[in-house]
Amino acid sequence: MATAAIIGTAGYTGQETLDRVLAHPGLELLALGSDTLAGKPAAAMDPRLNGHLPAFVTNAEAAAAGAGVVFLCVGHEAAAAFVPPAGAVVVDLSGAHRLRDAALAERWYGLAPGAWSYGLPEISPPEGRLIANPGCHATAALLALWPLRDAIDGPVVVDSKTGMTGAGRALKESSHAGAVLENLTPYAVTGHRHTPEIEQTLGRRVTFVPHLLPVRRGLLATCYARVDGDARALVETAYAGSEVVRVLPEGVIPELARVQGTDAAEVGVFADENTGTTIVICALDNLGKGAAGQAVQNANIALGFEETAGLRLQGVLV
Amino acid sequence: MATAAIIGTAGYTGQETLDRVLAHPGLELLALGSDTLAGKPAAAMDPRLNGHLPAFVTNAEAAAAGAGVVFLCVGHEAAAAFVPPAGAVVVDLSGAHRLRDAALAERWYGLAPGAWSYGLPEISPPEGRLIANPGCHATAALLALWPLRDAIDGPVVVDSKTGMTGAGRALKESSHAGAVLENLTPYAVTGHRHTPEIEQTLGRRVTFVPHLLPVRRGLLATCYARVDGDARALVETAYAGSEVVRVLPEGVIPELARVQGTDAAEVGVFADENTGTTIVICALDNLGKGAAGQAVQNANIALGFEETAGLRLQGVLV
Amino acid sequence: MATAAIIGTAGYTGQETLDRVLAHPGLELLALGSDTLAGKPAAAMDPRLNGHLPAFVTNAEAAAAGAGVVFLCVGHEAAAAFVPPAGAVVVDLSGAHRLRDAALAERWYGLAPGAWSYGLPEISPPEGRLIANPGCHATAALLALWPLRDAIDGPVVVDSKTGMTGAGRALKESSHAGAVLENLTPYAVTGHRHTPEIEQTLGRRVTFVPHLLPVRRGLLATCYARVDGDARALVETAYAGSEVVRVLPEGVIPELARVQGTDAAEVGVFADENTGTTIVICALDNLGKGAAGQAVQNANIALGFEETAGLRLQGVLV
Amino acid sequence: MATAAIIGTAGYTGQETLDRVLAHPGLELLALGSDTLAGKPAAAMDPRLNGHLPAFVTNAEAAAAGAGVVFLCVGHEAAAAFVPPAGAVVVDLSGAHRLRDAALAERWYGLAPGAWSYGLPEISPPEGRLIANPGCHATAALLALWPLRDAIDGPVVVDSKTGMTGAGRALKESSHAGAVLENLTPYAVTGHRHTPEIEQTLGRRVTFVPHLLPVRRGLLATCYARVDGDARALVETAYAGSEVVRVLPEGVIPELARVQGTDAAEVGVFADENTGTTIVICALDNLGKGAAGQAVQNANIALGFEETAGLRLQGVLV
Repeated sequence: MATAAIIGTAGYTGQETLDRVLAHPGLELLALGSDTLAGKPAAAMDPRLNGHLPAFVTNAEAAAAGAGVVFLCVGHEAAAAFVPPAGAVVVDLSGAHRLRDAALAERWYGLAPGAWSYGLPEISPPEGRLIANPGCHATAALLALWPLRDAIDGPVVVDSKTGMTGAGRALKESSHAGAVLENLTPYAVTGHRHTPEIEQTLGRRVTFVPHLLPVRRGLLATCYARVDGDARALVETAYAGSEVVRVLPEGVIPELARVQGTDAAEVGVFADENTGTTIVICALDNLGKGAAGQAVQNANIALGFEETAGLRLQGVLV
Repeated sequence: MATAAIIGTAGYTGQETLDRVLAHPGLELLALGSDTLAGKPAAAMDPRLNGHLPAFVTNAEAAAAGAGVVFLCVGHEAAAAFVPPAGAVVVDLSGAHRLRDAALAERWYGLAPGAWSYGLPEISPPEGRLIANPGCHATAALLALWPLRDAIDGPVVVDSKTGMTGAGRALKESSHAGAVLENLTPYAVTGHRHTPEIEQTLGRRVTFVPHLLPVRRGLLATCYARVDGDARALVETAYAGSEVVRVLPEGVIPELARVQGTDAAEVGVFADENTGTTIVICALDNLGKGAAGQAVQNANIALGFEETAGLRLQGVLV
Repeated sequence: MATAAIIGTAGYTGQETLDRVLAHPGLELLALGSDTLAGKPAAAMDPRLNGHLPAFVTNAEAAAAGAGVVFLCVGHEAAAAFVPPAGAVVVDLSGAHRLRDAALAERWYGLAPGAWSYGLPEISPPEGRLIANPGCHATAALLALWPLRDAIDGPVVVDSKTGMTGAGRALKESSHAGAVLENLTPYAVTGHRHTPEIEQTLGRRVTFVPHLLPVRRGLLATCYARVDGDARALVETAYAGSEVVRVLPEGVIPELARVQGTDAAEVGVFADENTGTTIVICALDNLGKGAAGQAVQNANIALGFEETAGLRLQGVLV
Repeated sequence: MATAAIIGTAGYTGQETLDRVLAHPGLELLALGSDTLAGKPAAAMDPRLNGHLPAFVTNAEAAAAGAGVVFLCVGHEAAAAFVPPAGAVVVDLSGAHRLRDAALAERWYGLAPGAWSYGLPEISPPEGRLIANPGCHATAALLALWPLRDAIDGPVVVDSKTGMTGAGRALKESSHAGAVLENLTPYAVTGHRHTPEIEQTLGRRVTFVPHLLPVRRGLLATCYARVDGDARALVETAYAGSEVVRVLPEGVIPELARVQGTDAAEVGVFADENTGTTIVICALDNLGKGAAGQAVQNANIALGFEETAGLRLQGVLV
């Protein structure tokens, strides 16, 4: 058993992390941090949270509570300023510690370069206690393209589509229901922070365009590249033993419905013989494998638990 | 003034064509064809259609009614079998007459090659009386890429997303609300009929993947290519005088909301300096510029009307 | 011809009013007021607004521009403080001037009682220059129940459901897409301002519960009452000559799809023989007949135009 | 431990039942019945279903497999014709066996009256082996109104709204995405089968109007009645010990988001002092407490398991 604290519980990633901690056989919830809810009972956030949970404390109090693992669910500025408690495993769900290149970290986040371990378990399992949890678009793009990295020849395009929870819970015009419902909006067309994150791990340039979907959850990245060799075999081999990444049989196309509410990912591989292009499609839940699920997966590795403890891998059939 | 008949009125494209014919200052509705509704009053289809409209007749009767322009809003098999009435302008909204290459027409439609004029007014204005109306994805891809055709170097990717009316009104599993709501589904990943249609006009191979959105109307194609020269200038020049295609100012991103319910299209041009890729995004309404709006625009040209007569170009602001 | 000014153009009702003014054969747009957009060209609000429109001015400047009709599209506090320009017709789309009872106006709005004419054309056509435009839920409830007012016996229930634009464009938690998508939320269950508004005109108490739908536009009120007499005949007689209110044939059920984007309303009347209850269902667009459409209809009456000038009465068939 | 068979696995209620059987600590899946999928592996229905599951057999084979509990997830005609295997607990999720009055059973289902036990655990726990599982609207209405049954004075209105999975997986016009998205449709306005079902248990007449929402899952019934006495106290007392029905604190309003994907229900009680009407709102998942969750709850009681074994009671926070 280990104890867990959540910093920034009231946001989407904080709530999703709380869900998984409560379902985790090896984690005991020690502290719920939220500067806006401090002093209130857990049920103040949601009437489903019963009296057995600790009341909210400030984020500083939660950090100091002595938990064995701290989930950092705040914005990147606050995450950059966070001082890790001695001895604790800390998983940062923000982008603060992801980019290792000084110029890129400065340009995209206005921060010093990240020194934490970039934990994408299927690709780069976390090492040590301080773990930078990958971004949602980056996770999907990397799960799709990483197995092909040495076989790609030429430009790489990642056309990604995410549900609106990917834009967070803060009130802003682009998250107002009037901007989202019945709409589709590309955003940050040539300037999204996940571009350097994908490139850093993939080792090559990518053209990446994210789009905001009128759905609550789920992210699907359609990736295009020319590949020398058998792309399907490379992808199947990469995830052969994985309980988290499901490579679909030939002809079966990933979609959001099968991954929403889960910490799993689906990958489909397609050969466009007309142009010689390989299309790899990855679907995942932006709050699951794209955030809180992966954070718990990383924590499991760092704490020595079974890698999938507390994760939701199946989802509902309807 | 000219008279108009609609063949296959009860489907989505038939209804949208009817909307435009009713609003058209130069068209008089002569016959409403529908084999399923024949013999019933117009209000049987929709209680908003009042008693001044003709009652439904069979498609054969509508074809024989002597209209000056016939809108063919049926599937490609029925459209291929349709015998154009002598002297009439006929606009076929299906794919039956689009592909001119015998092998491609056979492969994708099981039909003889199309001999009708492919009418995409901004690119290839229709000639003569028999007009093949372009597909919705193809229209968006071509509006985005056509101005760049001589400047493109290397592979072209078209990642397109359409509202569910693009899949038609027939009952099928993929159009059941349970398959569409809160979902995103790529489909026909390496085998969609619009691929050869785009290639035929663009003059080069494209990798094209369509996706089905959980929205009623609207289509957005995100297109990726390397371009020698000033892509924005090429696009702005191509549509400089157009009332239908709106090139957005630098930094403004197309989205569905501004084109839904209209016959206009939006094009945005973006330079990804990181990879040297040009991204051109085109948004339109799959039932407007992607179907019935373009059909009426084509008919206007063939009949000598003002090109935008009866079209909806502005839409609502909210 | 008359000139028009809009105060508070950037909100949903302001934009919808602008749409109708631009389409109106008898209105010339004189001034676009917006305190947040003052000094900017019309295209700053939406790239579709071209250079022929006036640039934004402050709301005070728009009010002083000398327009023949002023559409007041601001919150009720600002509307209450607005000083009507001499001689102008003013239509207030807020609730500031709707309640005539001093105690109710104080309780629900913190304002002095309204002295403006409550303009619901089918029920209480506006008189004079100062017009209080009805609320969206109130309009639907009154269109459903007004014809039955003298025949109702016992309690009246109005269960109303509105699209999210009914909650306005301001950023608030309940309008965040995460609170709206895939959700249904009753709100203000026993305390909505439209209750006294309905009661004031209907002349009897009503139990009214509004619900927020995950759709952009459209409002449907399901109304329940015991009626002595032939409810259908009363309703059909009331709207016999109306171009705006469409009473559906027996067995046809109102729905949002046919009224969205229009200024019309649909009413269906049903007899529940099991309980002796009459069910009257009214559907309209909360931004159309429920706001801007009715505002223009009221202005038409006050200015002596044809009552439906500039209105959208049909909508699209799909 | 007990063994379970599912008849009609491929529909929505079948799939949801399968989900719960797989998660149930005391049930072992013995047979997956589906006449359309017979002979195929479980993964033919969904790629997430792995090789440890039995392959599909015909419904007749599944019925004959000797399972301790049979979940009957087919239409009411097929359910009426089903012969219960000797000794097995059978839970029928259709309406075939719900109505006990001969005239009503004949009128609404064309069947002989139901002799099975109507199992709504909080109100009428199942007795014996043959259990009629309640309808989704009826469950919500009864959970809201049952505690008040002896205190209600006068007419009762149930205005219910359900997600589209409530209409089933069969292909029909009203379930086509084009009829559902961005729409709200009342249906069966004075003739829904759940009316006599509610009345049979409640012991009084109700006016019931169902509406179809553009969401996948979730049902919310807004119920109106005059109540003598303390409605809140009656409701709180009725569900005081329940893990399944959650009575919300004063002022907290039920909504779909907190019950979707769960087998729990939320009830909120509100006093409209203006009219003396009590408003009770119940939210549940039409496929959870409204179908498969309640079926498993009923099976648990019949089999002697803990009542909530295998149920999902919390849901996700986002």
